[in-house]
Amino acid sequence: MRLLLQGKRSFFRWITVVLAIGLLLWGFGQQRSAAQSLSLINIDPGQQSLQVTLNSLWVVVAGGLCFLVIIGLSLLNAGFCRQKNVVNLLTQSLFTLALTGVVFWWVGFGILFGDGTPLFGVNGWLLSGADNSPLTGAFYEGIFQSLSWAAIPLPTKFFFQMMLAAIAVNIVAGAVAERLQFLAFALFSGFFLILIYPVIGHWIWGNGWLAQWGFWDFAGATVVHMVGGWAAFVGTVLIGPRLGKYHGGESFALPGHNLPLAALGCLTVWLGWFGFNGGALLSANGVLITHILLVTNLAAAIAGMTSLLMAWFYFGKPDLSMMINGIVGGLVSISGICRFVNLGWAVIIGAIAGVLVVLSVDFLDRAKIDDPAGGLSTHLVCGIWGTLAIALFAWGPEQPLTESFILYTIGPAKGLLIGGGLQAVQQLLIQLLGITVVSFTTILLSWFAWMIIQITVGLRVSFAAELKGLDLSEHGLTAYNNFVVKQERQLNNPEKAPTLFPPS
Amino acid sequence: MRLLLQGKRSFFRWITVVLAIGLLLWGFGQQRSAAQSLSLINIDPGQQSLQVTLNSLWVVVAGGLCFLVIIGLSLLNAGFCRQKNVVNLLTQSLFTLALTGVVFWWVGFGILFGDGTPLFGVNGWLLSGADNSPLTGAFYEGIFQSLSWAAIPLPTKFFFQMMLAAIAVNIVAGAVAERLQFLAFALFSGFFLILIYPVIGHWIWGNGWLAQWGFWDFAGATVVHMVGGWAAFVGTVLIGPRLGKYHGGESFALPGHNLPLAALGCLTVWLGWFGFNGGALLSANGVLITHILLVTNLAAAIAGMTSLLMAWFYFGKPDLSMMINGIVGGLVSISGICRFVNLGWAVIIGAIAGVLVVLSVDFLDRAKIDDPAGGLSTHLVCGIWGTLAIALFAWGPEQPLTESFILYTIGPAKGLLIGGGLQAVQQLLIQLLGITVVSFTTILLSWFAWMIIQITVGLRVSFAAELKGLDLSEHGLTAYNNFVVKQERQLNNPEKAPTLFPPS
Amino acid sequence: MRLLLQGKRSFFRWITVVLAIGLLLWGFGQQRSAAQSLSLINIDPGQQSLQVTLNSLWVVVAGGLCFLVIIGLSLLNAGFCRQKNVVNLLTQSLFTLALTGVVFWWVGFGILFGDGTPLFGVNGWLLSGADNSPLTGAFYEGIFQSLSWAAIPLPTKFFFQMMLAAIAVNIVAGAVAERLQFLAFALFSGFFLILIYPVIGHWIWGNGWLAQWGFWDFAGATVVHMVGGWAAFVGTVLIGPRLGKYHGGESFALPGHNLPLAALGCLTVWLGWFGFNGGALLSANGVLITHILLVTNLAAAIAGMTSLLMAWFYFGKPDLSMMINGIVGGLVSISGICRFVNLGWAVIIGAIAGVLVVLSVDFLDRAKIDDPAGGLSTHLVCGIWGTLAIALFAWGPEQPLTESFILYTIGPAKGLLIGGGLQAVQQLLIQLLGITVVSFTTILLSWFAWMIIQITVGLRVSFAAELKGLDLSEHGLTAYNNFVVKQERQLNNPEKAPTLFPPS
Repeated sequence: MRLLLQGKRSFFRWITVVLAIGLLLWGFGQQRSAAQSLSLINIDPGQQSLQVTLNSLWVVVAGGLCFLVIIGLSLLNAGFCRQKNVVNLLTQSLFTLALTGVVFWWVGFGILFGDGTPLFGVNGWLLSGADNSPLTGAFYEGIFQSLSWAAIPLPTKFFFQMMLAAIAVNIVAGAVAERLQFLAFALFSGFFLILIYPVIGHWIWGNGWLAQWGFWDFAGATVVHMVGGWAAFVGTVLIGPRLGKYHGGESFALPGHNLPLAALGCLTVWLGWFGFNGGALLSANGVLITHILLVTNLAAAIAGMTSLLMAWFYFGKPDLSMMINGIVGGLVSISGICRFVNLGWAVIIGAIAGVLVVLSVDFLDRAKIDDPAGGLSTHLVCGIWGTLAIALFAWGPEQPLTESFILYTIGPAKGLLIGGGLQAVQQLLIQLLGITVVSFTTILLSWFAWMIIQITVGLRVSFAAELKGLDLSEHGLTAYNNFVVKQERQLNNPEKAPTLFPPS
Repeated sequence: MRLLLQGKRSFFRWITVVLAIGLLLWGFGQQRSAAQSLSLINIDPGQQSLQVTLNSLWVVVAGGLCFLVIIGLSLLNAGFCRQKNVVNLLTQSLFTLALTGVVFWWVGFGILFGDGTPLFGVNGWLLSGADNSPLTGAFYEGIFQSLSWAAIPLPTKFFFQMMLAAIAVNIVAGAVAERLQFLAFALFSGFFLILIYPVIGHWIWGNGWLAQWGFWDFAGATVVHMVGGWAAFVGTVLIGPRLGKYHGGESFALPGHNLPLAALGCLTVWLGWFGFNGGALLSANGVLITHILLVTNLAAAIAGMTSLLMAWFYFGKPDLSMMINGIVGGLVSISGICRFVNLGWAVIIGAIAGVLVVLSVDFLDRAKIDDPAGGLSTHLVCGIWGTLAIALFAWGPEQPLTESFILYTIGPAKGLLIGGGLQAVQQLLIQLLGITVVSFTTILLSWFAWMIIQITVGLRVSFAAELKGLDLSEHGLTAYNNFVVKQERQLNNPEKAPTLFPPS
Repeated sequence: MRLLLQGKRSFFRWITVVLAIGLLLWGFGQQRSAAQSLSLINIDPGQQSLQVTLNSLWVVVAGGLCFLVIIGLSLLNAGFCRQKNVVNLLTQSLFTLALTGVVFWWVGFGILFGDGTPLFGVNGWLLSGADNSPLTGAFYEGIFQSLSWAAIPLPTKFFFQMMLAAIAVNIVAGAVAERLQFLAFALFSGFFLILIYPVIGHWIWGNGWLAQWGFWDFAGATVVHMVGGWAAFVGTVLIGPRLGKYHGGESFALPGHNLPLAALGCLTVWLGWFGFNGGALLSANGVLITHILLVTNLAAAIAGMTSLLMAWFYFGKPDLSMMINGIVGGLVSISGICRFVNLGWAVIIGAIAGVLVVLSVDFLDRAKIDDPAGGLSTHLVCGIWGTLAIALFAWGPEQPLTESFILYTIGPAKGLLIGGGLQAVQQLLIQLLGITVVSFTTILLSWFAWMIIQITVGLRVSFAAELKGLDLSEHGLTAYNNFVVKQERQLNNPEKAPTLFPPS
């Protein structure tokens, strides 16, 4: 708790500085961040219709792959937690998926992408409203101007974006696992999906103020992973570590109960990410899609390798769970820039992500922030890194030549580390500003939401329930009937366990 | 047994009434239920060829997603059964998949879709015979007239339909699990795939008599789920409950051995259903596909939520297994109408499915019908509900206007509950007639098949074998070597256990 | 060891004979094995661009399905090994995936497909170099002539081929499981991916000498499965059987720890294979894709059924693990010919594969070659069978008529068993020559690589480590915390266990 307050105090100072710089940049930031327009107006109507169908088909497939990311994250969280809490985690995963399907349809999509203010959209509830973008291109007259560049039907846009929202809320589940009440999680999920995620998403993807300033996040390093990560972080800090995790200044491993499940989750996430990053194009273009896929795969491969090697050299063994986290970290870190970077720099971005994950897991453990499935290190830390990397390694916009279909005309400035110069500094400051404001807002809103839940229904289960396991106490089920399972080391007196969470 | 006979007596009376009404409706039912024609004749040949390729690609992907439904149902059944019978269930799943690949190619597809009588097809064995539908459109001259509307090659049609057949036969496995001989299951699967499923499918999808009367089932609520469900129902009733399930008037829970496996199965089924429903279009149209996907997702989400909340309020805990069944029930219930309904009514259909699943699980348990994996509640009950819902909530055919690509010209009448009037009553009676006749026929044929198997090789394993588990007794394997597993509570004298199945 | 030397001696004699025959055939073998050209030059540019996008989309989806094959093989291996070694196998799977992503990009793709000598390519490191095949068709001027026939962008080609390489290296993991050092596996993987796989692949797919002689392997029965299988075979022979597997002339079963995981792996492999075989077209053509899918599915179904029935009749029980291996064997055996064969012959090929798998599992067990996951029987034996089958059952090239889009103009000669005559004998000899030389070279290179590793870092873990399990000894982790697991039967004196591997 104190840690959070200290963090917040320095935060305030930092944000003041960055906001001041940001204002100075206002003049520079005029370049409208309209996404790449793939106008189809001057094409033969039959071919135009075929291209729209092709685009739709790819986005549908990509949405299905994003569903795999959700499945994978669920398995990852389930495998990394203890056997007595796995039903709880899986119920949360199914619940968030169902909730997103409803809530994002009601209001989320409208707030995120609907026309409105620079802070949030005020149109498009229940997916209503005209959208004829595939036919009109730039002469768009609907209420989702922020998506009018994409030559696919509105339901297709919604389908893909719904999956992204479900991924974001799933990130929270892993970090607060094994001690949060199910009702508290359900309430926070609703709050997150209605208020936090769509509002911040609107700033960046919904023609909001950050987009207008020139902030870039291609596939969701910021919107999905950093936002989900900060919401998880606040919950983790507020709820405190699991019983028995820290004792007498030492940290004790509470190892996951099913590493094959976690490894299957990692592989599923990896496969699904091809849709997560590739689908963000919202159009079918063979060269661009495969380029994004290769960049994504390379970053994941390098990050996994780096994490494995770091764990090998520092801890003496090639650690599977570290490699799993490294791969996920690599995938997160490349999401923001994947359309704007070449394969070589993807190696650097992935390698740094792999290092960051290992350092972060170690750091969080020392800071006594208990993150059972490693989601803070992968989604939050690598989400921040991926947002920064855009300003460091992006190719920079150029007129596409015939030899290279991968160049872009509208996008982030040429990266600072590859000779971008002044414009790169500007882009870096805008990315930093975005990171700061998004972090601050997400922390604030999440803290507010978690606190309301704490006051009304409470966050943490009782110590007795935590010892018994959330599967029994919250759901009345056990995950593995017929198997003989180990009983958790019983604390001497669970009723007198050190109070990890201050009575509010 | 007695229950079944009573059911049958009232069935006969009911069917007489409905048949009489049906005959009266003969005059109304003239509207030929030819599926929506997407003729490509007047288009540029190059573009026509591209559209055929696009259609094929989507149907191939959808077929692959249907394979995921099969994988998911296998995992669901495996996770919900006890540890000592899991090898048996998985062998059944692999077996049905292999058997379908062979038998549906030999005769099933020809009986279902081949030209012939209103009761069954008599052409197209071994997938032979001309099919040039992608090139000729309405001027079709092949032997699969019922599929000539679909502008994809014949092998593509077969690939998708084969997956649907494999799903239908997989439904049986879960309900008769943990006490049926493997040989008995293998024989019934063959009977089901050769006789039951293709014949009834022909009535509805193969230009058979129900289709000609105006009965509608878009993606298989009737053909796949209700038919599979009734076949499973008859088997379950005939074979009786598992040992130890009911004792002294009470019902005892025999909880599944691996809930993470079941939850993974549910997630896989959910993802796969996008292909099950979306693929039934047999063509690629961005708006229609995504509309179907959204409707499907919404029904699943609402049904899962409803089941979870009902379990929460009535039983005090948010029950994962109930939510899993709710989601599957929601998916089944929307399959029949998904192309003809808007998002709002999908919510109602899904919510009712979620309620029905919980009530049905409770009802079947009271009726001492032992359905280990809940498949009767999800596939049978929600299949019936989904077939009815078509007459209640369908938009009704209209001339499509430019603003809305989702309208249809040929399809079910406007729903009774949204102002369909007399035509809706007629549609409702036709749907009811279809439900009745399909149910009656499936029950009769299944009863016949199960009985022949009972007389020849027997249905149930010995009580000693059931206690030991089918993995050991039928397959000589154990699923989880190296793990310490619990022994089942030994009955006092297994040889004298109450005879649950009368010696025939 | 002795077995291998004997094998090699007869090998030398065999190869001399076959090489002599091969030289005689030089005159016949002139027919250039250029893959089917789908030139797009004479088409309207807009439609051409759409077709390229369609092709790319299918290959991307197929590549994703190949990723499923990798996931499936990982689960298969993990499920079939004992609980104490599962972390080791999963780490190997993630490692090979990451390593392939890097190494195949650096050099592998260039050696395999780059222009150069008939033995290996010397262009295209780091995926550099011009490739404008989608636009130029036959007027190709890049450095990947062997792939210039495919009308998709270069990154798309790479994406698909990378997955195939990752599958090949994954085959090794299963056979040497449960006793190999992780470092040894890592080093061999690198050697395999840099030297063995790309070089032999170049001979067949990279316009190398075997391709120029008229050797055919459509989707990788030879290149992927036979090469991976021989590399695994050599490793298995050199490292010797697992402790306790053979004792006093008898063979003891060391049953897999998690059959549901293995069955899920098999189902995942089956689904993924639709992309493995269908993607090898490198273009989107509805008829061809679905024909390949049906052939693939039928071979798998028949092979699985055959294996199940053989196990049933000979061992008395329908064995799940035999069916799993049969299915994989059927998939492997059809890979080489799937584009050139009709459904009827696919049944024969699959049935023989099913028989071969069962015989091979039995034979290897008698020969004391310890193959924990059955990969040698499925990938190696069925890979050889599949390579031969091309010469026995291929349709033979003909001018395609309008009625049949599945015929081919360039491909293997009409099969020997369906009346191919002299040309079929020639094709058979070429296939036999290919099998011989590829086998010999792979064995030699693998033996060389394994030996270098044996000398430098050693192959096998210590007996004490093997008894404890590789998870603990190599990775410091246990896979299933919280579960009570069985301890392995402790040998009397592990330090004095019979030396299974001769000190080199």
